[in-house]
Amino acid sequence: MACGKEVAKEIEWRIKVEEDDTLKRRVVGFMWAATAGVALKLWKFVKKAWELGVNDPRKFIHCLKVGVALSLVSLFYYWKPLYDGVGGNAMWAVMTVVVVFEYTAGATICKTVNRMCGTSLAGFLGIGVHWVASRAGEQFEPIIIGISLFLLASAATFSRFIPTIKARFDYGAMIFILTFCLVSISGYRVDELLDMAQYRMFTIIIGSILCIIVSVIIRPIWAGFELFVLVTGNLDKLANSLQCCVAQYFDGSEASDEESDKVSEKELLGYKCVLSSKATEEAMANLARWEPGHGRFNFRHPWRQYVKIGASMRSCASCLDALIGCINSDNKASDEMKKNMRSISMKVGAKSASVIRELATTMRNMTKSSKLDILVTEMNSAAQDLRSLLSSYPNLVNAPSHNAKRSAQTETAPSDIPQAAKVEIPLLQIIQVVTVASLLIEIVARVEGIVETVEELSDLANFQPEKRVKSKQHSPDSKISPDQQIDEETDRTLQMV
Amino acid sequence: MACGKEVAKEIEWRIKVEEDDTLKRRVVGFMWAATAGVALKLWKFVKKAWELGVNDPRKFIHCLKVGVALSLVSLFYYWKPLYDGVGGNAMWAVMTVVVVFEYTAGATICKTVNRMCGTSLAGFLGIGVHWVASRAGEQFEPIIIGISLFLLASAATFSRFIPTIKARFDYGAMIFILTFCLVSISGYRVDELLDMAQYRMFTIIIGSILCIIVSVIIRPIWAGFELFVLVTGNLDKLANSLQCCVAQYFDGSEASDEESDKVSEKELLGYKCVLSSKATEEAMANLARWEPGHGRFNFRHPWRQYVKIGASMRSCASCLDALIGCINSDNKASDEMKKNMRSISMKVGAKSASVIRELATTMRNMTKSSKLDILVTEMNSAAQDLRSLLSSYPNLVNAPSHNAKRSAQTETAPSDIPQAAKVEIPLLQIIQVVTVASLLIEIVARVEGIVETVEELSDLANFQPEKRVKSKQHSPDSKISPDQQIDEETDRTLQMV
Repeated sequence: MACGKEVAKEIEWRIKVEEDDTLKRRVVGFMWAATAGVALKLWKFVKKAWELGVNDPRKFIHCLKVGVALSLVSLFYYWKPLYDGVGGNAMWAVMTVVVVFEYTAGATICKTVNRMCGTSLAGFLGIGVHWVASRAGEQFEPIIIGISLFLLASAATFSRFIPTIKARFDYGAMIFILTFCLVSISGYRVDELLDMAQYRMFTIIIGSILCIIVSVIIRPIWAGFELFVLVTGNLDKLANSLQCCVAQYFDGSEASDEESDKVSEKELLGYKCVLSSKATEEAMANLARWEPGHGRFNFRHPWRQYVKIGASMRSCASCLDALIGCINSDNKASDEMKKNMRSISMKVGAKSASVIRELATTMRNMTKSSKLDILVTEMNSAAQDLRSLLSSYPNLVNAPSHNAKRSAQTETAPSDIPQAAKVEIPLLQIIQVVTVASLLIEIVARVEGIVETVEELSDLANFQPEKRVKSKQHSPDSKISPDQQIDEETDRTLQMV
Repeated sequence: MACGKEVAKEIEWRIKVEEDDTLKRRVVGFMWAATAGVALKLWKFVKKAWELGVNDPRKFIHCLKVGVALSLVSLFYYWKPLYDGVGGNAMWAVMTVVVVFEYTAGATICKTVNRMCGTSLAGFLGIGVHWVASRAGEQFEPIIIGISLFLLASAATFSRFIPTIKARFDYGAMIFILTFCLVSISGYRVDELLDMAQYRMFTIIIGSILCIIVSVIIRPIWAGFELFVLVTGNLDKLANSLQCCVAQYFDGSEASDEESDKVSEKELLGYKCVLSSKATEEAMANLARWEPGHGRFNFRHPWRQYVKIGASMRSCASCLDALIGCINSDNKASDEMKKNMRSISMKVGAKSASVIRELATTMRNMTKSSKLDILVTEMNSAAQDLRSLLSSYPNLVNAPSHNAKRSAQTETAPSDIPQAAKVEIPLLQIIQVVTVASLLIEIVARVEGIVETVEELSDLANFQPEKRVKSKQHSPDSKISPDQQIDEETDRTLQMV
C-alpha cells in the first residue's frame, strides 16, 4: 500500500511538474511571440517611415533644420549673458521656434509675422485694459477685465471664421487671444507688465528671426516652388493619362509584358493626382504669397492663378475619368468602326497631350511659347477632323460591306473615309466609339480652358517671348534646371502617392 | 504810388487767402473721402462677417463658448485660493484653453488628449535626461542635453510626416518637442522640476477638462454629425443635379421664368459641392473618431466609411460633370432622336436619382432600406431599356421618313419605338444623344458603386432592418429629427458655398 501511495505521489508530482513545465513553456512561448509581434510591427513602421524619408530626403533635412534651430535657441539658456540679456524670458524664444518652424518657408514666415503682430497688438490692448481696470478700483477691476476678455476673445474667435482672415491670419488671431488673456488677467502692476512685455516681445522676435534665417538659408523649401512643381507635374500627368488612355483603347492588344503594363497603368491613372490635389494647391497658394522672391519668382508672383490652372485641369481630368469609365464598361465597340476612328482619335489624343505638355514647358521656362498657337490650332483641327469623320458616317450605313477592307488603307485621310469605309454597323456597336469621340471633343474644349488660364498666368507674371529669353535659359542665372525640377517632381509624386 | 502798392498788396493777400482756402477745402475734402472710403470698406466687411454668422448661428455660439471657457479659466487668477492651489502656474490653464478649444468637439478632444499625452511623455523624458546630465558633471551637461534635444526634436519632427501619426498625433508631437525643450534645458534642479512639472500637468489637465466640458455640454458641434450631414446632403445634391440635368436636356424649353431658372441652375450645379468636399470629409472623419457616442452614433461608428462613400460619390459626380459638359457643347442633337430617347432617358435619370435619395434616407434613418433593392433593380432595368432602345436603332436608319410623326405618340412605350420611329437621322446629329445615353449608363454603374459603399456602411454600423426600427424612428429617443437635420444641412450648404 505504502509503495503504491509513493508511486501514486510520484506520478502526481511528475504530472504536476510536467503541467508546470507546459504552462511555463506556453507562457514563455506566448511572451516570445508577443515580443516578436510587437518588434515586427515596430520594424515595419520604422521601415515605412524610413522609406518615406528616403523617397523625399528634404523631409530629413527639415528635421535636421528643426534640430539646428532649437540648438541655436537653447544657447539663450546655456550662455549666461544671453540668458540675463532677455531677463530670463528665454522660454518664449524656445516656444516660438517650436511652434513657428514649419516645413515650407512660406508657412514659417506666415506664422512668425502672425505671432509678432498678434502678440504686439494684444499686448498693447491688454496693457491698456489693465491700466483702465486698475484705475477703476479693486471692486470693478475683475469685472472690467472679465467683460473685455469675454468680448475680445469672442470677437477674435469669430474673425477666424471669416475666409480672408482664416487664410492669412488664423494663427495671429489665436495668438492675439492668448497674449491678451495672459497680459490682461495676470496680476502684475502696469510698469512690471511693460518690462515683461518688452522682454517677451524681444524674445519672440529673436526666435522668429532665427526661424526665418534657418528656414530660408539652409536648403529652403518654398511653398511657391512646391506649388509650381505640383501644377506643372500634374499637367504632365494629365497629358500622359490622356494619351495613354486613348492609345490603350485603340491599340489595346499591343501592350504585352507585365512590366510595361504596370508602367502604363501608372501613367493611365496619373490624372487621379490631378483630381485630388485641390486642397494642397490652395494651401500652398496661401502660403506662397508670404514668401520673398526666390529663384525665378518675384515677391508678387500671381500664385492664385496656379489654383485656377488647377481647377481647369480638374475639369479636364473629370472628363477623362468619365472617358476611362466608358472605355472600361461592358459595352464593346465594333472593331471596324474602331479601326476607322483609330488614327484620327489617337491624333486628337496626342495633339491635346502635346498642348498640355507645351503648357507645362511654358510654365517651366516662364516664356510665352511660340509653338503653343500652332499646337492649339492643330489640336482643334484634329478635333474638327474627328467631327467630320463622324458626320461622314450617315452615308455609310446603307452601303455594301465589301468595301470594308479598303478602310484600313485610307484611314489616315479622313476626308476619304466617306467613300472608303462603306460598312453597315449596328448602332449599339458604335455607341462606345461615338461616346469616346464625343468625350475627346469635350476634352479638347476643356484643354482650351487650361490654355486660357495658363495664358492669363503668362500675362500676369510677364512671361517673356521665347526668343528673347532663350539665351537666358541656359545661363547659370536660372537656379532651377529642368532636371532638378523633374527630380523634385518625382519626390513630390511619391509624396502625393 | 503808395496807394497802388497797397492795392497790389491787398490783391496779393486776397489771392493768397483764396489759394489757402482752396487748398484747405481740398485737403478736408480728401480726408473726408478717405475716411468715408475706409468706413464703407469696414462696414462692408462687418456686414459680410455678420451675414456669415447669421447664416450659421452655431458660429456665434462657438465664439460665446470660447468666451465662457476663458472666463471660467480666468477664475484661477482672480480667486486667490485657486491661484495658490496651482502654485502660480494658472498661465498654463489659460494657454491650454486658448490653444485647445476648437470648433468641433472631436477637434477639442483630439487636441486635449494630444496635449496631455505629449506633455506627460516629454516631461518624464525631459526630467530623465536632465537627471542623467546633472550627474555627468558641469562640462558634459550641456553637451548631453544638447545632443538629446537635437535627436529627439528631429525624430519627433519626422514623425509628423508619417501619415498615421499626422492624422492623429500631429499636435501631440509638437507639444512633445515643446515640453521636452522647456524641461530639459531649463536651469532648475530636478526636485524643483518635479514640482513644476506636477503643477503644470495639473493645470493643463484642468484646462483640458474645462474645454471638453464646455465643448460637449453647451450646444456641442460633433465632427461626426457634421460629416454625416455633409455626406447625406451631398447625396441629395448629387441626386438633384443628376435629375435636373437630364430633365433640362430633354425638356430644355419648358423652364421659363427667371426665378425658377435660378433655382434649377443652383440645383444643377449642386454636384460641384460633391467634387470639392474631399478635404473636409477627410478632416472630419479624422476628428470624428475622437468623439464619444452621441445622438445615434456609437463611439466606434465607422466614420472612415463615409470617406469611401464620398469617394464613390465624387466618381459619379465627375461623370455627371462630363455629361453636363457634353450637353453644353456646340454639338446639337436631332430633335427627333431626342424625342425618342426622352422618356426612357429621363426614367434612367429619375431612377438613379431616387436610388441616391433612398441611400440618403437609409443613412438618415440608419436602417436597412427595404425599397433599395427594388429601386436598384428598376434603375438597372431602365438602363437596360435605354441600351435596348439604342440597340434597336440600326433597324431604323433605312426606313421611310413618313412614319416620323407616329413616334411622338408612342414615345412612352420604349418597346414600340423600333417599329414606330423609323426615320433616317444623320450620325452627327445623334452623337450628342448617344453620348448622353452612354454617360447615363456609366452613371448608373457608378451609382451602384455608391450603393455598395453605403451597404458596407450599413453592415459596419449594424443598421437594423426598416420595419423593426420604424416605431423607434418616431420615438423621442432619436435626438435628431429629420427637420432639424435638414435645417442644419441648409446651414452647412450655405457654409460650403
